[in-house]
Amino acid sequence: MGKLVRFSVSIDEGLINAFDALSQDMGYTNRSEAIRDAMRHRMVRREWEAGDEVAGVIMLLYDHHRAGLSETLTEIQHHALDEIISTTHVHVDADNCLEFVAVRGESHAIERLADRLISLKGVKHGALTGTSTGKRIV
Amino acid sequence: MGKLVRFSVSIDEGLINAFDALSQDMGYTNRSEAIRDAMRHRMVRREWEAGDEVAGVIMLLYDHHRAGLSETLTEIQHHALDEIISTTHVHVDADNCLEFVAVRGESHAIERLADRLISLKGVKHGALTGTSTGKRIV
Amino acid sequence: MGKLVRFSVSIDEGLINAFDALSQDMGYTNRSEAIRDAMRHRMVRREWEAGDEVAGVIMLLYDHHRAGLSETLTEIQHHALDEIISTTHVHVDADNCLEFVAVRGESHAIERLADRLISLKGVKHGALTGTSTGKRIV
Amino acid sequence: MGKLVRFSVSIDEGLINAFDALSQDMGYTNRSEAIRDAMRHRMVRREWEAGDEVAGVIMLLYDHHRAGLSETLTEIQHHALDEIISTTHVHVDADNCLEFVAVRGESHAIERLADRLISLKGVKHGALTGTSTGKRIV
Repeated sequence: MGKLVRFSVSIDEGLINAFDALSQDMGYTNRSEAIRDAMRHRMVRREWEAGDEVAGVIMLLYDHHRAGLSETLTEIQHHALDEIISTTHVHVDADNCLEFVAVRGESHAIERLADRLISLKGVKHGALTGTSTGKRIV
Repeated sequence: MGKLVRFSVSIDEGLINAFDALSQDMGYTNRSEAIRDAMRHRMVRREWEAGDEVAGVIMLLYDHHRAGLSETLTEIQHHALDEIISTTHVHVDADNCLEFVAVRGESHAIERLADRLISLKGVKHGALTGTSTGKRIV
Repeated sequence: MGKLVRFSVSIDEGLINAFDALSQDMGYTNRSEAIRDAMRHRMVRREWEAGDEVAGVIMLLYDHHRAGLSETLTEIQHHALDEIISTTHVHVDADNCLEFVAVRGESHAIERLADRLISLKGVKHGALTGTSTGKRIV
Repeated sequence: MGKLVRFSVSIDEGLINAFDALSQDMGYTNRSEAIRDAMRHRMVRREWEAGDEVAGVIMLLYDHHRAGLSETLTEIQHHALDEIISTTHVHVDADNCLEFVAVRGESHAIERLADRLISLKGVKHGALTGTSTGKRIV
């Protein structure tokens, strides 16, 4: 946390009332925090578009009975040590696994890694979700 | 435009600097306007999820040589007069047409109408983009 | 429409049954068309990421009482004649207007144009929705 | 894996060539797998909209120096034992933490849990990413 600055915003009464109602509905107890989150949300998207250093998670749903898949997943991840922080594995049922690969690095390199993992035969569904490293987004 | 209210927000110095840089990059000349837009963006998404009265556009890319397609598109639209405001047609090249159907109504009814148009044989690509009617979002 | 080719796909019985049920629910009367649409959907996203020539619509919701806004919107659009095909204007109520700007051009140029229009003071909400020109996506 | 069925699809030559090029670029070595993935992608979105039993990950970026935040995060998670499978914690730098909460349950309950966690003061950015439990999506 750096230095706090305070500034004022002028907003139409109808807009701020509607925003407050929505924020409360989403669980916010504080208007400033809801506004800061709306601002940060926009900034994360831009960090990804700009090719900045970012963080995120690659989620993979797969059937672990598929021959060779677990080995290939492990092999690819071991060649991406620079980007991968850790991997969590969850057993969904007798067949299905969920794997969450925490990643960090240049946004386009992470997108390529995600493409490569998601396109493997046996991976039923996958998605990359991006966030920030939090350095610029305080 | 209703009554303007003015309130203050406290924000970490690093966050507001990063937000100002992004806003300038996006063309904003005014910090308050960038903040209001980030707030409104969030509210539009919720209006759609809540099944409120909303507005939007259904975009359709299709090949007008496909037999019967233009007639079917027209026929479906004439049975959705309550939701459809107007339709704009653009000739992309000798084969491809773009159609923009301006819509207004309950969000889930509009989603069903979009599904129906987009799923037609000959429609190559389609998308529904939502906005607000602007009543609650000032 | 070019030459049709026919090829076979092998799919788990459970997957194709679930996909057929979803397709029917979305209004598809034909499995091949539902599969082609799922394929095209993926390709449109890539055309945009790759900076290809694309098409789309910029949707703007604004209050026409805002001094100078209509003029600025018109002015910017007249300086983007290469990208803008046509503009449709819809009166939502006494205050709110919806404008749909049909665009075509290099994807990143269109994104910058959309940013510039959406960031204007008085534009309450805006969104860019992308599609293809239909040349590569048959 | 259930029984495999084989069926044929007819597709315009230009479309299948463009799709093959994209698939190769994304790392697919097999056309059928690229087509199955495009189909599954669509189905996951519908499971979420329909309120089915789904799975996913809630990603949270936060500053662990924020007083009381870690305790509140833990407290909320302990009251959502039905939905939460496991939590992975990653140290991004001296200040920033990334937490990945693996979840499973009815889609709208998971959305509410995500809202509640993301709206906490000190959580800088958060996102919910949905996938399937893999039961219907083979």
